[in-house]
Amino acid sequence: MLRTAKQYVESLNDGRVIYLNGEKIPDITKHKAFRGSINARALSYELYNHPKFRDLLTIEEKGDRFLFLWNQPKTAEDLVHRRNLYITCMRWGAAMSGMGPDALAASGVTAARMDKALGTHYTEAVEDYRKHLRQTDPAITGAITDVKGNRGLRPSAQEQHKDFYVRVVDKNKDGIIVRGAKIHISATPSCNELIVSPCRAHREEDKDYAVVFATPVNAKGIKLLTSPARIEEIGSEEAEWDWPLGGRGGGVSECMIVFDDVFVPWNRVFMCGEWQYSRDQAWLFGVFHRLFGTCHRVIATEEAAGAAALLAEYNGLDRYPHIQEKLAWLAMHSQLIDAMAQYGCEHPDFFEDIGLAAPSLMFTNIAKYIFANDQHETSKLVADIGGGIVTTVYNYRDWMNPEERPYIEKYLAGKGGIPTEHRLRAIRMAKDLIGHGHDGATIHTEGSLAAQKMAMYAAADWEKYKAIAKRILNIPGWEKHPVTKDLPPYPAKWII
Amino acid sequence: MLRTAKQYVESLNDGRVIYLNGEKIPDITKHKAFRGSINARALSYELYNHPKFRDLLTIEEKGDRFLFLWNQPKTAEDLVHRRNLYITCMRWGAAMSGMGPDALAASGVTAARMDKALGTHYTEAVEDYRKHLRQTDPAITGAITDVKGNRGLRPSAQEQHKDFYVRVVDKNKDGIIVRGAKIHISATPSCNELIVSPCRAHREEDKDYAVVFATPVNAKGIKLLTSPARIEEIGSEEAEWDWPLGGRGGGVSECMIVFDDVFVPWNRVFMCGEWQYSRDQAWLFGVFHRLFGTCHRVIATEEAAGAAALLAEYNGLDRYPHIQEKLAWLAMHSQLIDAMAQYGCEHPDFFEDIGLAAPSLMFTNIAKYIFANDQHETSKLVADIGGGIVTTVYNYRDWMNPEERPYIEKYLAGKGGIPTEHRLRAIRMAKDLIGHGHDGATIHTEGSLAAQKMAMYAAADWEKYKAIAKRILNIPGWEKHPVTKDLPPYPAKWII
Amino acid sequence: MLRTAKQYVESLNDGRVIYLNGEKIPDITKHKAFRGSINARALSYELYNHPKFRDLLTIEEKGDRFLFLWNQPKTAEDLVHRRNLYITCMRWGAAMSGMGPDALAASGVTAARMDKALGTHYTEAVEDYRKHLRQTDPAITGAITDVKGNRGLRPSAQEQHKDFYVRVVDKNKDGIIVRGAKIHISATPSCNELIVSPCRAHREEDKDYAVVFATPVNAKGIKLLTSPARIEEIGSEEAEWDWPLGGRGGGVSECMIVFDDVFVPWNRVFMCGEWQYSRDQAWLFGVFHRLFGTCHRVIATEEAAGAAALLAEYNGLDRYPHIQEKLAWLAMHSQLIDAMAQYGCEHPDFFEDIGLAAPSLMFTNIAKYIFANDQHETSKLVADIGGGIVTTVYNYRDWMNPEERPYIEKYLAGKGGIPTEHRLRAIRMAKDLIGHGHDGATIHTEGSLAAQKMAMYAAADWEKYKAIAKRILNIPGWEKHPVTKDLPPYPAKWII
Amino acid sequence: MLRTAKQYVESLNDGRVIYLNGEKIPDITKHKAFRGSINARALSYELYNHPKFRDLLTIEEKGDRFLFLWNQPKTAEDLVHRRNLYITCMRWGAAMSGMGPDALAASGVTAARMDKALGTHYTEAVEDYRKHLRQTDPAITGAITDVKGNRGLRPSAQEQHKDFYVRVVDKNKDGIIVRGAKIHISATPSCNELIVSPCRAHREEDKDYAVVFATPVNAKGIKLLTSPARIEEIGSEEAEWDWPLGGRGGGVSECMIVFDDVFVPWNRVFMCGEWQYSRDQAWLFGVFHRLFGTCHRVIATEEAAGAAALLAEYNGLDRYPHIQEKLAWLAMHSQLIDAMAQYGCEHPDFFEDIGLAAPSLMFTNIAKYIFANDQHETSKLVADIGGGIVTTVYNYRDWMNPEERPYIEKYLAGKGGIPTEHRLRAIRMAKDLIGHGHDGATIHTEGSLAAQKMAMYAAADWEKYKAIAKRILNIPGWEKHPVTKDLPPYPAKWII
Repeated sequence: MLRTAKQYVESLNDGRVIYLNGEKIPDITKHKAFRGSINARALSYELYNHPKFRDLLTIEEKGDRFLFLWNQPKTAEDLVHRRNLYITCMRWGAAMSGMGPDALAASGVTAARMDKALGTHYTEAVEDYRKHLRQTDPAITGAITDVKGNRGLRPSAQEQHKDFYVRVVDKNKDGIIVRGAKIHISATPSCNELIVSPCRAHREEDKDYAVVFATPVNAKGIKLLTSPARIEEIGSEEAEWDWPLGGRGGGVSECMIVFDDVFVPWNRVFMCGEWQYSRDQAWLFGVFHRLFGTCHRVIATEEAAGAAALLAEYNGLDRYPHIQEKLAWLAMHSQLIDAMAQYGCEHPDFFEDIGLAAPSLMFTNIAKYIFANDQHETSKLVADIGGGIVTTVYNYRDWMNPEERPYIEKYLAGKGGIPTEHRLRAIRMAKDLIGHGHDGATIHTEGSLAAQKMAMYAAADWEKYKAIAKRILNIPGWEKHPVTKDLPPYPAKWII
Repeated sequence: MLRTAKQYVESLNDGRVIYLNGEKIPDITKHKAFRGSINARALSYELYNHPKFRDLLTIEEKGDRFLFLWNQPKTAEDLVHRRNLYITCMRWGAAMSGMGPDALAASGVTAARMDKALGTHYTEAVEDYRKHLRQTDPAITGAITDVKGNRGLRPSAQEQHKDFYVRVVDKNKDGIIVRGAKIHISATPSCNELIVSPCRAHREEDKDYAVVFATPVNAKGIKLLTSPARIEEIGSEEAEWDWPLGGRGGGVSECMIVFDDVFVPWNRVFMCGEWQYSRDQAWLFGVFHRLFGTCHRVIATEEAAGAAALLAEYNGLDRYPHIQEKLAWLAMHSQLIDAMAQYGCEHPDFFEDIGLAAPSLMFTNIAKYIFANDQHETSKLVADIGGGIVTTVYNYRDWMNPEERPYIEKYLAGKGGIPTEHRLRAIRMAKDLIGHGHDGATIHTEGSLAAQKMAMYAAADWEKYKAIAKRILNIPGWEKHPVTKDLPPYPAKWII
Repeated sequence: MLRTAKQYVESLNDGRVIYLNGEKIPDITKHKAFRGSINARALSYELYNHPKFRDLLTIEEKGDRFLFLWNQPKTAEDLVHRRNLYITCMRWGAAMSGMGPDALAASGVTAARMDKALGTHYTEAVEDYRKHLRQTDPAITGAITDVKGNRGLRPSAQEQHKDFYVRVVDKNKDGIIVRGAKIHISATPSCNELIVSPCRAHREEDKDYAVVFATPVNAKGIKLLTSPARIEEIGSEEAEWDWPLGGRGGGVSECMIVFDDVFVPWNRVFMCGEWQYSRDQAWLFGVFHRLFGTCHRVIATEEAAGAAALLAEYNGLDRYPHIQEKLAWLAMHSQLIDAMAQYGCEHPDFFEDIGLAAPSLMFTNIAKYIFANDQHETSKLVADIGGGIVTTVYNYRDWMNPEERPYIEKYLAGKGGIPTEHRLRAIRMAKDLIGHGHDGATIHTEGSLAAQKMAMYAAADWEKYKAIAKRILNIPGWEKHPVTKDLPPYPAKWII
Repeated sequence: MLRTAKQYVESLNDGRVIYLNGEKIPDITKHKAFRGSINARALSYELYNHPKFRDLLTIEEKGDRFLFLWNQPKTAEDLVHRRNLYITCMRWGAAMSGMGPDALAASGVTAARMDKALGTHYTEAVEDYRKHLRQTDPAITGAITDVKGNRGLRPSAQEQHKDFYVRVVDKNKDGIIVRGAKIHISATPSCNELIVSPCRAHREEDKDYAVVFATPVNAKGIKLLTSPARIEEIGSEEAEWDWPLGGRGGGVSECMIVFDDVFVPWNRVFMCGEWQYSRDQAWLFGVFHRLFGTCHRVIATEEAAGAAALLAEYNGLDRYPHIQEKLAWLAMHSQLIDAMAQYGCEHPDFFEDIGLAAPSLMFTNIAKYIFANDQHETSKLVADIGGGIVTTVYNYRDWMNPEERPYIEKYLAGKGGIPTEHRLRAIRMAKDLIGHGHDGATIHTEGSLAAQKMAMYAAADWEKYKAIAKRILNIPGWEKHPVTKDLPPYPAKWII
């Protein structure tokens, strides 16, 4: 089943307990601060009907049409398709939250692994939930990051209380009771349901924290504390002029989700106590979601390159080599992320025993690491090309004031032939891209830099690298590695 | 004469033509958005009377006591004193705008040079203005950056009109008429007067643009278009909680100053047509003002190191080597800026023919370059240590809501023994430091990165470096350089 | 035809005029300093017969079997095959010089373009040469970089003489006479023939410099001045112990090739005066050769990662996070180059009008830029992990001295269970990788960093980036770009 | 007493047991490979008599004249003098090994501290040794770095044997017996004596390793295994042409010093078992020796800037902005190291209870960290400006061959008016600076990058930074810190 945008919007007025800026919001669909994220998500429902994109977003099986993302990826083609779907929605201006589908994909793999190794039956629950998704077409998100307390202590060793990581506090024949809080959960207000996963590996003493489940956002005991948004007026003419990106698709998105003893029935529980598999779930979510994150950054870095290129032109600077060098870096950065993420889908990791696939752990993490590590450099270059005016540019109200406007129009003109208003808009876009502390968010979203380094270290084939060195050094140990086993001792032989 | 803080505040209600967010503001001392910058400046008037700082801020000559900055620096001690004055005010929480005093110091040197070389009498005007400053104790700023139009064209070659750089459009026996606009001029609303200087070197065809002068901010024809501030509620309990720095000393500061055919009498004109000296004025202002800028960054980088150190502790992370490494970098960065700027005062450039001194062109620019070039790295490290919560932290209103507070208190706790509120405050401080696009501003304030590179290239003693190499290479040309002339051919001789 | 390794080696004793360290070398196949490069090239002839690699290296057409590289690339598969061929030879320990085949591939494209646009017949000459290559199986190289004189002046505007770039000094019915010198031409001593191409774009006044041709290395008038090699003893037990890489495949390789009025017959001339196409030839050679360069660096960075991983293990450090972080970077770097270069072959640039293909200008240059730009970082990390001993390690003679050996064996031991000799060998490998000034060579080989930046700027689709920004900013100009033309105005519409 | 250069040289033929390249060297003063380091050290004895430098190098007390470095630093002036002494010798072309005097200075402080805290009498031994130095004027070095074995294990926990760190194996009424090996000890062949210190902190179980002592280099049981030098022909015309720096002052310098049960009398023992003070000795040696290291790098970075500036000029590139930007960086880098190290002497750390002083731990480590961390960047820029020719340039023998020379002279010419030979020499200097793997050595010499980070973290006043943040955040804890205690709560008060 596919819902209409209208059905989707109405479904969000569901009695959820949600706060913003110290106020409880009775119906988020009536509140301007939620307008951007809800509208962007609604657009993705609209896109179901677009003749060019229908087959990209949806899939038909046995007469039933549903969102492509409800299927479990099995091939490189599935992953490339997934990537195209995300990028297409984003470029269009729509939002397709990746957190939910990425958690679903991770759960599909982890459940299969647990069932195979431990004889559990979690795949049945995952498949039951998948059926529900196909039948009701909800918007879903995924909740990973716990609030963590003292970062130097494990979940079960926390000092102040034991709820810094979401955990099972009780269970009965019908289901489980969970407590804790997840934080920085994007797109929660615009979603109907969510999948909860651990954010780290566990030891046996942490087994109550090894829990994966799905739940409606409006379940009893769930409280949503939304983070204040930098822009809360969304979609007005003023907002669109001042913040060409954030004034449209921005607004409130991030939530702390408090689980105040929430009940989850067994058919929505995908892990419960199998602490050895928490790491799998966290890592698999990580790699699926970093793929999503790279799609986001392809769009964002193209926008940065575009705003910088316009400003270089409008400022009369685009013929200077040092400006071209900076622009070249911005283009390189965007293309590099795009290509590496695409490469990670074209050359995925296959889990052959369970017949499933995930984006390459190495290449997806490289793409993610590079964009996060260089985000501050990106902003620096945009600011460098844009100039001080990116900080001090006037806003819609100044521009609309007939006393100020002639001065702004005269004095903020750039290159001849370019309307001052065009230059102002490009400046506002640069300001929107770099002026809100995005940089700091970018290095943490989809996992910190340290998380990518750990993943790349884990993904690297150290036996290969050592075998290559040992063969050259005539140290035993290279004769069996697939990369070196067919080679002769190094070098092959002396001909002269 | 020294004014009281009260006299200072009242003097700002002077009929100036000033706009904010599209509105004309009749009396800025009554408008909350100006409160932060006016209050911070007022505090520096208060400091005149502080027993520990009175002799640092003021000087007594012939029975008259006045601001130390009105004197022209002649020695290393003067420059070190100047630096201490700026840093003391800033650390206190007061503001002493450097742009005005820095432009005054630059004018003192440039006027003396012109008079000596060209037989002009600009020093008389500078001294007359200095006398006025001593007698009336105004708050002054300095206006340098022009709006520039097409950055690829010189002032006199602009396409759309000729007013992209401030210029003399007429002159008569009483004075001159100027037109144009200066932009990004900090502290203008909180000042009474300003000194206007060129921002670049000129050729003969640009000579109308070679003009330096002082004027009251409320002179006829001056219009002030203030840039929208990121925080406009200043000083409320909410503002202070949400933005521990910006909610107190922040608010509106930056202005575009439009000169709509403004009259300036000859005794306030410090250059008029001597295009060969525009570069001197721009460079001298640059080096004095970059000294000021480094004082600012010493304070800001200490704050960044402090917020990061608190967060590392409150998050339970301060014992981890990779966190200590990042903290070490933040401390190094702050100390490096401090020491290099201090070194540039202790070892200044002396202009012996006119008996004056300026901060070392090389060392001051190194200090400035380093803080600007590494600003994004600073923010990245603070964000890395602080975590994603720096982006999504709750605000005062959430904290004050009795329904939300227990959840925030419980779930945003960190290390045992640290009140959650302390952790929240430290996070808000980190957010305030890195979350508003400061980074981009920092690389442009007091001159772009390119400006520092040019200055360092100019300040470098290339003949020394080449002489050192030539001596080693036995290529003639090193025998006369002071650094190599007393040395024997390289190496001295062969003993064994 | 395919030659044997023995035929190949004998063919190099061809009367060529070649100097090393001030001496004229009568027969390079008898001189130890040339042993490494000749042997490595000879191994590639041996590989023709390897059952696993025969079909990778050679191709059979109409009953004739010849080197795969003699064919002109037309498809992504051809380029991936080319890449595999290069990497396989290198990993084996053999050398397949890319400069010649890369220049051939560039000439194939440029000749086709000229013929199509100008009605010339250069393709005939290229095909005639290709036939000769297939029939005689020579080792070939390509000569690009001119000696350049004053880098600030064009070829025809040089001060001291007009021969700083290779040029045509005469022509007649049989062929042309060329003069000048090419420098840094790798693998020249181990090759039989070479293709000469311009290294830059030309204007009409430089048209004598617009010349592409093939010639035997021993042609009359050619003088080869080889650059001194860091290691000149190749292949002895001592050389192999001291320099596990350079002591085997190293030795003399780089040449300045002087063309002292050399005659070239018309059937070996592939461009002569068509100055508008010099840029094409230079850029096409660049992109083919940078692909080759990335193959080289995949091998070298795998070796660096391997040596570093062994040293981390042997030093007892591989469990420390800061060491793992550095190792992760080395693995990332190697994989990134590999994947980007592969991606550039899988997604090549097609020249549809002439039915040919080249590695993607953007992605190949990104791969090249990244390895060159980060080469010094690579060496820094290897040195950091390896420790000071990489500088001061003992050599074969010390190790063989029975008085020193017990001390070396005792005191240079590392982790328990690892023979000291293994540690020493790994250290010698690290020293060989980073200890000879390779870093500086790496940033210049296959074109300087500036060359890649220019190529990336040129390859970037600036109209795309601007269109993306303009659509967001509601500035006309995005409606026709392929990436944005099917999209609605941004954002699609407001649903709520 | 002051020795003559001749006396010094003769004193080195003292029967020491020393190996090079697997050979035992009977008299190093007769071996060309040692010529560079001995000659450079001999020049410093010559400099005693130079009228301009006599008072810089030597000091007269009670009618006795001796090397200034034999005195213990007590004031900023002493440290500035020390710095000038080192730099003057180096710039001259002489060598004054810092390791010995730096170990002496460290021992002076550590002995005083131990005596004061523990009631030991080590200061007597240090003063006795100081007297001996004044009377006999030997060249001394200092030995710090142990061979370390498994870097993950403490000295007393090593796996293969217990001698990976120098330790006391026996003691009696006359003295102690030591065993172990120190590595990377610069200038050992050109020295008469050495001071041995621990390279790390110890715990009680490591107390046998807590030992500091002085010994002649030719003491019974000492074996010197010199590291192979990159250049072993020193001082010939060819060596000077090929390696303008290394061919003169280079050659063999680094040693592993094996202590094969060496006896040390008590009056040369400065620590023996006081494991709590090993850290002090290591850190103090570190800061004194890093001061020396920065002197070295001031010279080296000036040479790099000079070679790059000459090459930019000779290549016709010095007017291009991107070249000037790179040159500006090289000048900045050199000046920054110079100024920070000088600042660390002008503002030293005083140990008031014992009346002694050391270079500032913070500023000296910043200077050291910056040069080591940016060494690879320095080499990259020199290589970038110099071009590929820095890798492939011809040598003396090519230049002297009358057949090759005309081609080299013609084709390697650069800018008009510059003799080709001058360009070649500048290229050889660049090659000498960056072509031998210096970079890796530089990041380790005087302690690894990690060592500086630890030192800076330790030197940082974290209480200051936290106090500054706490005052702003209204968190108790800032009221007593010296930097914040005189300040009011932040901000001072609200005036408007």
